[in-house]
Amino acid sequence: MSVQEYISANAGGFFAALKEWIAIPSVSGDPALAGEVARSARWLARHLRDTGLPTAEIWETPGLPAVFAEWPAQDPRAPAVLVYGHHDVQPVTPLEEWQVPPFAPVDRNGQLTGRGASDDKGQVLFHALGLRANLAASGAGAPPVTIKLLIEGEEESGSLHFAGLLRENLERLRCDAIVVSDGPMWSRDVPSICIGTRGLVSAEISLDGPAVDLHSGAFGGGVPNPAHALVRMLGGLHDQRQRVTLPGFYDDVAPMTERERELFARLPFNEGEWLATAGGSQAAYGEHGFSTLERIWSRPTAEINGIWAGHTGPGRKTIVPRSAHAKVSLRLVPGQDPAKISQSLRDYVASHTPPGIRAHVELHGPGARPCSVPIDSPAVQAAQRAMERAFGTEVLFTRAGGSGPEAGLAEALGAPLVFIGVGLDDDNAHAPNEKAEMPLLLKGAETAAYLWDELAATLARGQP
Amino acid sequence: MSVQEYISANAGGFFAALKEWIAIPSVSGDPALAGEVARSARWLARHLRDTGLPTAEIWETPGLPAVFAEWPAQDPRAPAVLVYGHHDVQPVTPLEEWQVPPFAPVDRNGQLTGRGASDDKGQVLFHALGLRANLAASGAGAPPVTIKLLIEGEEESGSLHFAGLLRENLERLRCDAIVVSDGPMWSRDVPSICIGTRGLVSAEISLDGPAVDLHSGAFGGGVPNPAHALVRMLGGLHDQRQRVTLPGFYDDVAPMTERERELFARLPFNEGEWLATAGGSQAAYGEHGFSTLERIWSRPTAEINGIWAGHTGPGRKTIVPRSAHAKVSLRLVPGQDPAKISQSLRDYVASHTPPGIRAHVELHGPGARPCSVPIDSPAVQAAQRAMERAFGTEVLFTRAGGSGPEAGLAEALGAPLVFIGVGLDDDNAHAPNEKAEMPLLLKGAETAAYLWDELAATLARGQP
Repeated sequence: MSVQEYISANAGGFFAALKEWIAIPSVSGDPALAGEVARSARWLARHLRDTGLPTAEIWETPGLPAVFAEWPAQDPRAPAVLVYGHHDVQPVTPLEEWQVPPFAPVDRNGQLTGRGASDDKGQVLFHALGLRANLAASGAGAPPVTIKLLIEGEEESGSLHFAGLLRENLERLRCDAIVVSDGPMWSRDVPSICIGTRGLVSAEISLDGPAVDLHSGAFGGGVPNPAHALVRMLGGLHDQRQRVTLPGFYDDVAPMTERERELFARLPFNEGEWLATAGGSQAAYGEHGFSTLERIWSRPTAEINGIWAGHTGPGRKTIVPRSAHAKVSLRLVPGQDPAKISQSLRDYVASHTPPGIRAHVELHGPGARPCSVPIDSPAVQAAQRAMERAFGTEVLFTRAGGSGPEAGLAEALGAPLVFIGVGLDDDNAHAPNEKAEMPLLLKGAETAAYLWDELAATLARGQP
Repeated sequence: MSVQEYISANAGGFFAALKEWIAIPSVSGDPALAGEVARSARWLARHLRDTGLPTAEIWETPGLPAVFAEWPAQDPRAPAVLVYGHHDVQPVTPLEEWQVPPFAPVDRNGQLTGRGASDDKGQVLFHALGLRANLAASGAGAPPVTIKLLIEGEEESGSLHFAGLLRENLERLRCDAIVVSDGPMWSRDVPSICIGTRGLVSAEISLDGPAVDLHSGAFGGGVPNPAHALVRMLGGLHDQRQRVTLPGFYDDVAPMTERERELFARLPFNEGEWLATAGGSQAAYGEHGFSTLERIWSRPTAEINGIWAGHTGPGRKTIVPRSAHAKVSLRLVPGQDPAKISQSLRDYVASHTPPGIRAHVELHGPGARPCSVPIDSPAVQAAQRAMERAFGTEVLFTRAGGSGPEAGLAEALGAPLVFIGVGLDDDNAHAPNEKAEMPLLLKGAETAAYLWDELAATLARGQP
């Protein structure tokens, strides 16, 4: 039975299992749902055991649990590969904009809609299907490389305990390559491999003024308004050329290379179509002197993710609000250090806080480092071949604007990274109505099935 | 029986009735509570009938109902006085900061805590007690002036239908003076009469960007972020001298008079104590070149009352929010026209909206005009005498930073205004834990009881 035949024959069961998993609301950012994240981990461990992996464990952390699973290669001299993904999902607000309930997934016209369908449950689960397909095609009782899976539970809320998890389990995680299974490819018709991600620092800024909300008639104009201080502070976060004004923000930014520009130029980029996927945004907008792809892949940015103060309900309430808050995220590019940029954010807030207002910056963890993968590494070359076999067409190279704990993972394990992703930019990964293209998830499974053979053939096994 | 004796004897019943009324959550700003505002109107009309007023009616509007009541003077040649107040209340968010449930009033140590205790149910209801005290002291079967009450139901949400209500009922509302019963006096020990209020324009500003929230990694830095546009727009609402930057905002502002400065200078103002009542604000702050009292009484201001965009819940959600919103209020001083300032706000928003963002300004009604009362008017002089009898001490003059529909009322009815208020600035009128000082509400009733005699003696009756 070929890989393709196996996958076709088992697609129904795969999607049924995926729906069951999506129905578990494993939102890591909401403390009230911690129990659901744990339930999601148990579901996955059981599913991997059912798939045949001899080891599938819950790894507890001081926060939310990860899942580790392992299937040793038939040949003990074969290299080991670690698949990284996550089983937690983004919050679902604003709930009223979902056309289906986010945790009651629906498939229609080849799309599966539900929180996590694309990011990242769909792209984790296809490995189970791909692994079975590989074994069905080879007739072997074990995979051609040792396969380990580490599927964390805090990726969408900053991977707070991931570094500790790696430190404590270095021996069991030892591998010769890391396959990151999370993220988009270029487009429905153009498969691609990502060769870098941006880093991330994110934080909540709080400004406190009076101890209570004040009548804006009796006090307005006579005392500092924390909402004014916040909009002035954040209004100054970009200059007229849309450059971020945090002190020293660009000091360590690595300039783009010629090779990078050439690779990006090969991609069939149509700005109008891209704007359509950007929620129908009406204009490209960003740092002066850079193209859209450069802005979102190779340049650092600062975004307000949320802001709130005072009366936000119906009608009018004429107050000076007692406090004002914002959530801000900074995307970083190679060269930038999350710790240094975090300090720069603190310094900026401190220097922009007017008299009579108290400021507080709460970082969402230590941040994620930016990540860059050499295109000519054996792992990337093997992944390109596997993906070209699955899709039957040339595979190009991209970067990603998003962030993950991959750089830290590669550094901790001392192994090269390769990204395979079959999501699309219009999957609404962090928005209402997240969906996955069902045929692409199956292509992901097929890629994974070929990948183990390709890696077995080319990957050098590390020193024991 | 003296006025004081009557009030002492009936204080218990007065506070019991007030608590019953406060328990009705008549929040005019919340459409879901429209039925409660109607219930509050019915409660008041019944209470006024029980007080003895021959007429007490619900006046419907296209929005929320007002209450009108009338008790003709014994002498048909006596002047007519209209008491204005409101029976709707402010919203109660943030609910978690209330120490008692806002609609389950509690009295302790001479303070009655509950939404509306001071603003304005307490200050409306003392008129019923004062009127009975006046009749008990005179032994007459009707008051010395014709008393009319107009208690509206939309004051806290912009008095949207008040002008129409006046137009349709001009004949029945005809009067020789208008007593506005809403607001604070100078301090617990210093009774005062307000001789002016600021006008008000308020609006909700909405900025729309992408059709959905976007992944801030995939799209951030490449498309306009409505939250950035909003903070930049509102961050520019004040210049470095804390002057409002709306075009033409100061063009028609009447400068303060010498008389005004003299009256204000007589008030025992202590900025440290004032800051303590301002929720413990740590510094006075506002338009350069003006004192605190000047800033809050005689200068126009702009305040952000609320702002919201994107993810405001727990944890991190790295998005470019699809839209951003703010509620803004502008306080106006004599000379400024709400219609002209509303247009200026629209112009400001339009000229500060960047490409790719769509802006919408929704005014909360036509606004309120600022109001100025001549200190030597017979009505003000009569009120000063009545208040000095009740409090046994000199009554000074203030202005108010707040706003109401009084200027429109005086203009529509062609009658002079007089403000009597026994609230305090630290009543938390628009904040959690609103309270009224119970002894001051009784002094308000006593003032009202004397006021009708003073007005009967001095007020010229208008031409029929």
